[in-house]
Amino acid sequence: MPAESRPDPDPPAPGADASGDPWARLDFDRARRTGDPEVVFGSGKTPDQVVQLLTELHAAHPGRAVLATRLDEATRALVAERLPAASVDPVARTATLGPMPTPSGTVAVIAAGTSDQDVAAEVAVTVACFGSRVQRINDVGVAGIHRLLDAKPEFDSADALVVVAGMEGALPSVVAGLTGTPLVAVPTSVGYGASFGGLSALLAMLNSCAPGVVVTNIDGGFTAGVHAARIARTAHHPEETR
Amino acid sequence: MPAESRPDPDPPAPGADASGDPWARLDFDRARRTGDPEVVFGSGKTPDQVVQLLTELHAAHPGRAVLATRLDEATRALVAERLPAASVDPVARTATLGPMPTPSGTVAVIAAGTSDQDVAAEVAVTVACFGSRVQRINDVGVAGIHRLLDAKPEFDSADALVVVAGMEGALPSVVAGLTGTPLVAVPTSVGYGASFGGLSALLAMLNSCAPGVVVTNIDGGFTAGVHAARIARTAHHPEETR
Amino acid sequence: MPAESRPDPDPPAPGADASGDPWARLDFDRARRTGDPEVVFGSGKTPDQVVQLLTELHAAHPGRAVLATRLDEATRALVAERLPAASVDPVARTATLGPMPTPSGTVAVIAAGTSDQDVAAEVAVTVACFGSRVQRINDVGVAGIHRLLDAKPEFDSADALVVVAGMEGALPSVVAGLTGTPLVAVPTSVGYGASFGGLSALLAMLNSCAPGVVVTNIDGGFTAGVHAARIARTAHHPEETR
Amino acid sequence: MPAESRPDPDPPAPGADASGDPWARLDFDRARRTGDPEVVFGSGKTPDQVVQLLTELHAAHPGRAVLATRLDEATRALVAERLPAASVDPVARTATLGPMPTPSGTVAVIAAGTSDQDVAAEVAVTVACFGSRVQRINDVGVAGIHRLLDAKPEFDSADALVVVAGMEGALPSVVAGLTGTPLVAVPTSVGYGASFGGLSALLAMLNSCAPGVVVTNIDGGFTAGVHAARIARTAHHPEETR
Amino acid sequence: MPAESRPDPDPPAPGADASGDPWARLDFDRARRTGDPEVVFGSGKTPDQVVQLLTELHAAHPGRAVLATRLDEATRALVAERLPAASVDPVARTATLGPMPTPSGTVAVIAAGTSDQDVAAEVAVTVACFGSRVQRINDVGVAGIHRLLDAKPEFDSADALVVVAGMEGALPSVVAGLTGTPLVAVPTSVGYGASFGGLSALLAMLNSCAPGVVVTNIDGGFTAGVHAARIARTAHHPEETR
Amino acid sequence: MPAESRPDPDPPAPGADASGDPWARLDFDRARRTGDPEVVFGSGKTPDQVVQLLTELHAAHPGRAVLATRLDEATRALVAERLPAASVDPVARTATLGPMPTPSGTVAVIAAGTSDQDVAAEVAVTVACFGSRVQRINDVGVAGIHRLLDAKPEFDSADALVVVAGMEGALPSVVAGLTGTPLVAVPTSVGYGASFGGLSALLAMLNSCAPGVVVTNIDGGFTAGVHAARIARTAHHPEETR
Amino acid sequence: MPAESRPDPDPPAPGADASGDPWARLDFDRARRTGDPEVVFGSGKTPDQVVQLLTELHAAHPGRAVLATRLDEATRALVAERLPAASVDPVARTATLGPMPTPSGTVAVIAAGTSDQDVAAEVAVTVACFGSRVQRINDVGVAGIHRLLDAKPEFDSADALVVVAGMEGALPSVVAGLTGTPLVAVPTSVGYGASFGGLSALLAMLNSCAPGVVVTNIDGGFTAGVHAARIARTAHHPEETR
Amino acid sequence: MPAESRPDPDPPAPGADASGDPWARLDFDRARRTGDPEVVFGSGKTPDQVVQLLTELHAAHPGRAVLATRLDEATRALVAERLPAASVDPVARTATLGPMPTPSGTVAVIAAGTSDQDVAAEVAVTVACFGSRVQRINDVGVAGIHRLLDAKPEFDSADALVVVAGMEGALPSVVAGLTGTPLVAVPTSVGYGASFGGLSALLAMLNSCAPGVVVTNIDGGFTAGVHAARIARTAHHPEETR
Repeated sequence: MPAESRPDPDPPAPGADASGDPWARLDFDRARRTGDPEVVFGSGKTPDQVVQLLTELHAAHPGRAVLATRLDEATRALVAERLPAASVDPVARTATLGPMPTPSGTVAVIAAGTSDQDVAAEVAVTVACFGSRVQRINDVGVAGIHRLLDAKPEFDSADALVVVAGMEGALPSVVAGLTGTPLVAVPTSVGYGASFGGLSALLAMLNSCAPGVVVTNIDGGFTAGVHAARIARTAHHPEETR
Repeated sequence: MPAESRPDPDPPAPGADASGDPWARLDFDRARRTGDPEVVFGSGKTPDQVVQLLTELHAAHPGRAVLATRLDEATRALVAERLPAASVDPVARTATLGPMPTPSGTVAVIAAGTSDQDVAAEVAVTVACFGSRVQRINDVGVAGIHRLLDAKPEFDSADALVVVAGMEGALPSVVAGLTGTPLVAVPTSVGYGASFGGLSALLAMLNSCAPGVVVTNIDGGFTAGVHAARIARTAHHPEETR
Repeated sequence: MPAESRPDPDPPAPGADASGDPWARLDFDRARRTGDPEVVFGSGKTPDQVVQLLTELHAAHPGRAVLATRLDEATRALVAERLPAASVDPVARTATLGPMPTPSGTVAVIAAGTSDQDVAAEVAVTVACFGSRVQRINDVGVAGIHRLLDAKPEFDSADALVVVAGMEGALPSVVAGLTGTPLVAVPTSVGYGASFGGLSALLAMLNSCAPGVVVTNIDGGFTAGVHAARIARTAHHPEETR
Repeated sequence: MPAESRPDPDPPAPGADASGDPWARLDFDRARRTGDPEVVFGSGKTPDQVVQLLTELHAAHPGRAVLATRLDEATRALVAERLPAASVDPVARTATLGPMPTPSGTVAVIAAGTSDQDVAAEVAVTVACFGSRVQRINDVGVAGIHRLLDAKPEFDSADALVVVAGMEGALPSVVAGLTGTPLVAVPTSVGYGASFGGLSALLAMLNSCAPGVVVTNIDGGFTAGVHAARIARTAHHPEETR
Repeated sequence: MPAESRPDPDPPAPGADASGDPWARLDFDRARRTGDPEVVFGSGKTPDQVVQLLTELHAAHPGRAVLATRLDEATRALVAERLPAASVDPVARTATLGPMPTPSGTVAVIAAGTSDQDVAAEVAVTVACFGSRVQRINDVGVAGIHRLLDAKPEFDSADALVVVAGMEGALPSVVAGLTGTPLVAVPTSVGYGASFGGLSALLAMLNSCAPGVVVTNIDGGFTAGVHAARIARTAHHPEETR
Repeated sequence: MPAESRPDPDPPAPGADASGDPWARLDFDRARRTGDPEVVFGSGKTPDQVVQLLTELHAAHPGRAVLATRLDEATRALVAERLPAASVDPVARTATLGPMPTPSGTVAVIAAGTSDQDVAAEVAVTVACFGSRVQRINDVGVAGIHRLLDAKPEFDSADALVVVAGMEGALPSVVAGLTGTPLVAVPTSVGYGASFGGLSALLAMLNSCAPGVVVTNIDGGFTAGVHAARIARTAHHPEETR
Repeated sequence: MPAESRPDPDPPAPGADASGDPWARLDFDRARRTGDPEVVFGSGKTPDQVVQLLTELHAAHPGRAVLATRLDEATRALVAERLPAASVDPVARTATLGPMPTPSGTVAVIAAGTSDQDVAAEVAVTVACFGSRVQRINDVGVAGIHRLLDAKPEFDSADALVVVAGMEGALPSVVAGLTGTPLVAVPTSVGYGASFGGLSALLAMLNSCAPGVVVTNIDGGFTAGVHAARIARTAHHPEETR
Repeated sequence: MPAESRPDPDPPAPGADASGDPWARLDFDRARRTGDPEVVFGSGKTPDQVVQLLTELHAAHPGRAVLATRLDEATRALVAERLPAASVDPVARTATLGPMPTPSGTVAVIAAGTSDQDVAAEVAVTVACFGSRVQRINDVGVAGIHRLLDAKPEFDSADALVVVAGMEGALPSVVAGLTGTPLVAVPTSVGYGASFGGLSALLAMLNSCAPGVVVTNIDGGFTAGVHAARIARTAHHPEETR
């Protein structure tokens, strides 16, 4: 189809494959427009594409870490091999390349169970790349409510909360009842049977009886991290703004 | 169709309409088989049918209250008019006719919000008809966890728990984490949007991370009441069995 | 059932009905815990219950407006009659009673179409009650993208964005691509056929390709307003903090 | 992310990985709170994590069997190798470690078909660990009703019933019509096409026309076992309490 | 639009409205093609349209009853007024006009509960119109299995069975296990909550573990009646074919 | 909320209400951008809003008919009263105001049953407003395939086909197998039970085995009319272009 | 668990495993009760279980073929190896053991596409085992309606029709419009995207506008074969009954 | 089963397997009927079947390319080996055999993201086979709206548009708002969590607020290509018709 679809004989643009067909119109201006880092969504891309995109984006933004998410094992291996300066996280399934920003504000990442750790880790890496500190609080599921209450001082001073839970997705409601801090709920695909791949947790969180609970897609750790970091880094911190 | 379908010229059986077609094979033996009272499921029946069934079942079981559930306003009015001895509950949408049994054991009925009161009331009436005491605990939603914790002594000594909640359906998980008493969760249709008429609460409860949480249909107060009363009335009560 | 369920002969607590059964454990401490106003969720409550709750909460918090949401026509009429000091909004279906707080920060509320105005109005009332200014931008659906681009200066300086849309729910993705401000998407039930009461818009928003889009329940204007106001009022405003 | 998320240089807590990040806040008090054994939910955990948790929980509760469920083949193999004292059940996909409790009361586990045996086995192991006797009744599907009627004497004296069925999920309704014993229905994922992984059986059981049928998640053998054992072990047994 | 869409100035065809636009191409040949009567599906048609169609079809087929189904109250009233020779059934919501055919073979119509009577009645009228005898058996739900077993002799000699049930839809599986007669299952919309308007019963019946159970749409009494009558009237009846 | 949300004291813009809040940014340029008429989507708008919008759009485009769709009975009555020059169609639920364009090309609108006529009528009005001729073919459902085959000459010369069907939605597949003309399928909400408001027809059409069948929303007559008219009016018509 | 669950020391029953636990209560009486052969549903059983069941059932019914369905490749291989007298069909995924019955009546099996052949083959094997002749008609999808019309003489004389189709599932409606023979529709899982594993075809068939179309589960070839054979073998065949 | 099902001893027809059973009634007339090429739908067919069908169809239509779609890797390999003259596209998963037609008109294929390239490639190959030119525009997702606006001149002169997008499926609405060219939207299965395999994008596109957006099945590149090419090749092109 090339003849019909790409009559233009110009040299390949950045991010173009050998046939001259640009498969990705790189957007070097997002940072300027939004104040955020560049990000590569790894799902559906080949390992080679991810490495190439990380390389080009890092070259365009040498002063700030570029983030790649949803990297499968083969991609993480190729990134580690080709880009030794990259930091690869096998739990979060992410890679970062370049210096992390100086953090401003704090996001508490609260996870219900051991099985939710990979999503919580993706939140954490994302928050750090988008410019805030991370405070992690693990294994505080609602069936052992005293553990959550014990952990309350750990998240009381955060600027934003991300609450990660699968199965019945009840944790965000309980946490939101304990605080007035902006809170993002992340349903995970942890569960079986009628959890329907995280649908149950998603619906539960959307129906939270606690005021102000907003929700991401199932396993949407990246989305939650972006939103929470944007809140935390612009929050008023008297001690910092002096 | 009568000619083809009902060749039998016998006189109408009890519970038969004028044309001789029996529309309900009354089952006078359920009590003997199961130890439970007779029940009329009012939904889909005319007010006249409900009154007739209550009358016939009461005549057959004069010593024990008969229960009718899911009665709409017109049916409750007709029952009140025709059967003055009946006890009609407009919140639970029930009627009972005949003496209540002596209760054995206690069922605590815990409801999350004001809007769940009608289902909780149906649980309560059912428990009483099926032979146990009721302890009601209202308005202890998960978004105000301290209220639930304050109420813990009220349900600690119950033989069975029924936990009623709509929206995100999180309450049963939290309660089940506080106790080892058998617990039945009842999702209600309270909510809007993605609650999908109680589906969200139902799915959440089915996916509870707390051990041993069993679930009824949406707004299934009658089912929960039957199950819980059966547990409570056969539980070991040393002080009673003396 | 009262005899079994409420052995306690104490006088009725506030928010209790005539039989002494408290149908709502009022939580006078939420404001202290969260910094937010008291709120009455009107759905599933009788007009009388709403009026009583507004009255009691206002008495407990005379210095700050109490908010009631999801009030049907009958309830709004009774509130207007019994509580002349209340401000009733027929589009947002809300009532407020008491002085509004001094706003801090700004929330831009962006709505796709005329039919989304009631949800957008609920967002606006909620934001004001929870302590921020509101900037409304209407009728900027994605099928006329130039109108949205023309409106960009109007929302560029906001501290948080709430984007309200029904049908295909595309607007939040486009807006989120234009800005780095924290953004909450609200799907509405506007649409027909395969919109399935807002499900299509909800799913679209959960799957936004733009980073950081978080979502509320269908028609979840109250949730969005709470979340956005919490962000805006704690955002760093150099000119205000002088 | 460790630097930001875990500033605490304390030595690893029990159940913590090498980096010092506790991935599981072990709850050594559940037994005291609920009277139940400790349980490891194996799904989503690595074989090493399961072995470590079993080891720690057994050390804390040497007098009572600890249960691990939903163990895949690799995990069962590692448990068998590292913990030779453990009892591994390949059909139920469980492991237990420590002495089983003296049983009190009886739970009859009734399964519809050969393909439901793994879920029925999980129920049986759970019931035993939670302190009751098990009476198993297999292959009594509703399409051969005489086999079920023949088996009635086998379950008539049980204190609780667990009924396991896939496909159309009709068995619990028929059994519940024959008895007044508390009954838990467990839908299984057995079926094809429009069984939708057990959804059909789940919905059928939730809509049972027989009074008192409560339901677990699809393949929820563990939940049913916990609930039924709690009922059976507290039921009044005159001959035992002498 | 008439000018563009209907350039033809011909006089109105039968079944055409005043503007000359034929809104129904009447098919006077169905009887010849299929051996079945003519049928008017009343849903979505005005009372006037139903009366006109019945009149025209009866005129074309004076020797055999024409059937109209799914008639709302207004339509039934108009039919009764305009076509006094018609036989209107308010429970089945049908009307027939013309002489019923001599029946051949027998269809047993088995219904689970009182609330399923309207659908069972539609089956019965349809079977009679399509040329078979009807044997009705009511109120034999699976929760009282002995009533069904008692009724077995009533349906043992039928040529086809139609089994009507709502809620969990278990009855067809039990009946199909008792017989080798061709059986059609009809799910009804009887139920509440997670019955989802009959979806639960439909799914259950599609997943029947008993061999040979085929299913209609929810409340599909007409479909079942047609299918069963076709079976029964062509079945081999030695005594009749003499 | 006005004070905060609309600081601008400017006079009301066209399409603004009394409070100065513009509830619709009128887009007078769509015609220039797309070659299509202006359209008012009536659903969710008050009768007054529809009348006002029709008036303003007609004033801005006096030479070409403006279209309003999905008008309920009250709105149609007000339009007829206030805008006597408007043409109101009660079946299509539309109104047009201004001269219709000279048609170019032909769209055949094929409908399966009598109950699909309202959607077919909406297609027809839309096609005419968007500039093409309409050829209507009614009552050619797939259960009487000979009627469809008889009608083939009627649609063989059209430039585009719109096929409207509810229930099983099979008609588009059959028509598409008979022709190579571009074809749009419109599922309607006609049906009951498992038609789920048109979902069954929608899914069937999306899965058509005939090549090139594209689909609209349920009852999406307007969408189909726009798409088909755009095809027909730009199709090559040698006899017209002379 | 054996000790608790199987106190009975009796020797293993037929179909029991080594531990004495009967995993299948063999039902040697089905043939007498229903006139049908014995059947093994292979799904969810091990190859060894299938071989053992075929062996035992064949021993009990040496005069009539036993059928096993839904056999995966490993099971078919083991059956072929252990039971050389069995007839294994890799397309239908079935095995039969023993002499086939003399057929009575004819079932036409009509399939829409090449991909539906496996389900059609399962229908055919089942029909033959249950006692009727099979007439197969392939590749007559609705997008080439002339092929179906050409094949009409092939199915006009059948006693029952089974129509197999995936994707939009339209074929049964068209066939049912051409004939008055009892017709069973079988939706297949053939398709992609919004076919949702056959759900689209299932829903379409349930909503057929043609009278008398009954439906099986997705890929329910066995069910259709049983139902159709029961019809065909009892149909009146004057030439046979002489 | 062959004996019963295929009594005809005729020699195998084209497209028949060794046993003489025709598994595909080849339709050599489609081209004449519709003006389109012959197509092999590869899904569910063996590599051998695809090669045989391509060979036979090419022999019958030597002057025009035959198209095969949805070819898995094994099939593509066998086609490449056996039919060296075929053109195999691994991204589009297609093969063509024979000379491509001279194109008429232009279809612009607009894709949202890199992951949508395979579906866009299938559209492109299909359009070319069905007789139009292809103009491809990639990576213009709605989150970077300026890239789409920059590309507007590239698609302004097309005769038809195909817009391919996954996730929230918003791109068609934005494109449709910029143009009056007929537009087909193709939802892709790109996404995770609540994208439910492309369902979210499908629903969003069906609910587009932009006029005239028609939709294909998920990943329905072939359908869109057929529809768009039919539009483009019959569109009026003054410069071509001279």
